Amino acid sequence: MRAEIISIGTELLLGEITDTNAPFLAAELPALGIDLYWISQVGDNQARLVKVLKRAWQRSDLILTTGGLGPTEDDITREAIAELLGEKLKPVPALERELREFFARLGREMPLTNLKQATIIPSAEAIPNPSGTAPGWWVEKDSHILIAMPGPPREMQPMWQNRVLPRLRPQIGGVIISRVIKLFGLPEAQVAEMVAPRLSSANPTLGVYAKADGIYLRLTAKAGDEKEAGEMITPFEAELREALGDYIWGVDSDTLPAVVGCLLAERKLTLAVMESYTGGLLSATISESPEAAPYFKGGLVAGSDEARVAYGVDYRLIAGSGRESAQMALAMAEVAQSRLGAAIGIGVTGEDELGEAERRLFGTFYIGVAYGKNKHVATSSYPGSRARVRRWVVAAALFELRKVLAS
Amino acid sequence: MRAEIISIGTELLLGEITDTNAPFLAAELPALGIDLYWISQVGDNQARLVKVLKRAWQRSDLILTTGGLGPTEDDITREAIAELLGEKLKPVPALERELREFFARLGREMPLTNLKQATIIPSAEAIPNPSGTAPGWWVEKDSHILIAMPGPPREMQPMWQNRVLPRLRPQIGGVIISRVIKLFGLPEAQVAEMVAPRLSSANPTLGVYAKADGIYLRLTAKAGDEKEAGEMITPFEAELREALGDYIWGVDSDTLPAVVGCLLAERKLTLAVMESYTGGLLSATISESPEAAPYFKGGLVAGSDEARVAYGVDYRLIAGSGRESAQMALAMAEVAQSRLGAAIGIGVTGEDELGEAERRLFGTFYIGVAYGKNKHVATSSYPGSRARVRRWVVAAALFELRKVLAS
Repeated sequence: MRAEIISIGTELLLGEITDTNAPFLAAELPALGIDLYWISQVGDNQARLVKVLKRAWQRSDLILTTGGLGPTEDDITREAIAELLGEKLKPVPALERELREFFARLGREMPLTNLKQATIIPSAEAIPNPSGTAPGWWVEKDSHILIAMPGPPREMQPMWQNRVLPRLRPQIGGVIISRVIKLFGLPEAQVAEMVAPRLSSANPTLGVYAKADGIYLRLTAKAGDEKEAGEMITPFEAELREALGDYIWGVDSDTLPAVVGCLLAERKLTLAVMESYTGGLLSATISESPEAAPYFKGGLVAGSDEARVAYGVDYRLIAGSGRESAQMALAMAEVAQSRLGAAIGIGVTGEDELGEAERRLFGTFYIGVAYGKNKHVATSSYPGSRARVRRWVVAAALFELRKVLAS
Repeated sequence: MRAEIISIGTELLLGEITDTNAPFLAAELPALGIDLYWISQVGDNQARLVKVLKRAWQRSDLILTTGGLGPTEDDITREAIAELLGEKLKPVPALERELREFFARLGREMPLTNLKQATIIPSAEAIPNPSGTAPGWWVEKDSHILIAMPGPPREMQPMWQNRVLPRLRPQIGGVIISRVIKLFGLPEAQVAEMVAPRLSSANPTLGVYAKADGIYLRLTAKAGDEKEAGEMITPFEAELREALGDYIWGVDSDTLPAVVGCLLAERKLTLAVMESYTGGLLSATISESPEAAPYFKGGLVAGSDEARVAYGVDYRLIAGSGRESAQMALAMAEVAQSRLGAAIGIGVTGEDELGEAERRLFGTFYIGVAYGKNKHVATSSYPGSRARVRRWVVAAALFELRKVLAS
């Protein structure tokens, strides 16, 4: 099955927003065994959109569009699909009722312009959108499938997950399952080398991807049914775990803060942070989930040396040569632990340096973990922009914490 | 002049990376008076790329490509352009010399595969790339311009700024300048209503956009020269400032943390934070820039009520009905101010509630600013996901701080 993605909206052509819908959908297709050859962005112009749709209809079996389903005059995806297929838009009373109910729940009257969202063509079926006013469209005609989804990712993504995927999957022969294994602490090239003999495997396939929170390995198996596909992946995964076990922190949709959060919650442990290098980003990452409330006591962000001393770090450490050191990171962890009465304290410190290759920042950082009387330190360097290094250090701190909890 | 952008790379079609080059270039074109009608992403497949290039050559005057200029077999942009124009690739000794010098500076020998980066067609001219091995191509033929740039943004962006823009600008008649005015604290619909009579203005034009840190108004004027365009924008901008002055916090590339940072640095004031609702995100945002070091003393992140008390907030406030209140926000601001010895303290607190529309979070938050004896509080509600509300509250806190500093 050949697919094509079309993202619709003049704001994409003005560079005002970045199209994240196309990469989201593109990343979903390989696991379905669907080949994607074309992605394009087009403005809110009916003639141009119809042209793009016509070409897609000629060359692709599955067309996914996002955007242009809103209530304003600029929203022309419905009209363009009607023109493409030579069909007429007709009002659907059930859709209108749902829209009126949506507005009633908000305590507002429905503007008349929204009525166009309750129209449809005969070949299309509405896809419910609990997150907004724009229903999607599922069109099947002449062995083509065209699926039109709304542009806002918080409407499009649940529609894709809950409505489109479950209906699309049975139309594709066989079953494809994938498993993502997530690592931290090894460079991408080294991981690739370690798994090299497996990279050319045709089924299951193996892909290696560098992400902000480490390296992801994606295993994908294609088989007649789910059981068979699972049996293909299991030994493959075991082999990778054998080789890379110490570096693996999660699978599939796991995130580092969630993995660490589960370990803390399971053991009823609490956590406190003191951070200078990351300036609050470690605390912000840990507290992202509302589930962090029971275990996350708090964080001390030291923007200055005076702040470290005010928090209780021994001033002699700051005056001495150990200002940025593993010893300092551990002292920060201990102060956070005792000041906030937490079972575990983490301390993160470090500094940026210009690396050997000119104009490249090189962050050297130290992570200390104090868990009861157990003390653990780690240090590393990472190149890149300040924002990138800070994100990396946050992942490193969570990875070290996980190591301590899992040992 | 009609433009088209083509981003090349199979990783774009696998959803492994998000195309940020197209939005970067798209955002540059309106100011040049160039209309962009088409953006597409295509994989590393010569036949498909040539098809896309042929269509672009028919319908566009200016074609910008990124990607596919590397040294590997997958990099087929040069070959595809040669096929499009029916020309032959020939080695260029000067380019080869530059490449060898590039590798010599790195102390490495040049792999033979890189030789293809030193080939070119007669209609093309090489664009130097000081950040990498792939020179760009500037092609002019039959009143079309095709510019091929490398894919990595840190190579593409300087090439665009330093080599392509200066050469492209004189080829376009007239001048276009724009100005962005940034507001916070008013809903988009209300801003749009306030400026409604101006929204239909043809020159200068006015656009209204909702962003994570408020509402942006973009004024764009087209004229014979820069002075004239400036004279068209000035009275328009003055009018908007008259109507919206209190809500305006910046222009053009200003960011809220940078605007606040400048005000603090100018007055040699220092800042400390206590935050519960935002869990460290306010501190992380303030400390994002390395320039924050002199004025940002630090932040106290309270993940729990015990932490607030440990930091010095009166426990009676927590026990009382004012647990989440303006009074609490102010108390937090005062504790941060005194504990970290800062001229100014900010406190941020609040909680999530389920809003009227089901499953929609509604964050009610309180911001306190203590500046010497001057006390300032603000409160508001904002709907959306937890991540979205937290970002919004960070912007609100910085906006309130700016208000206090500017008054």
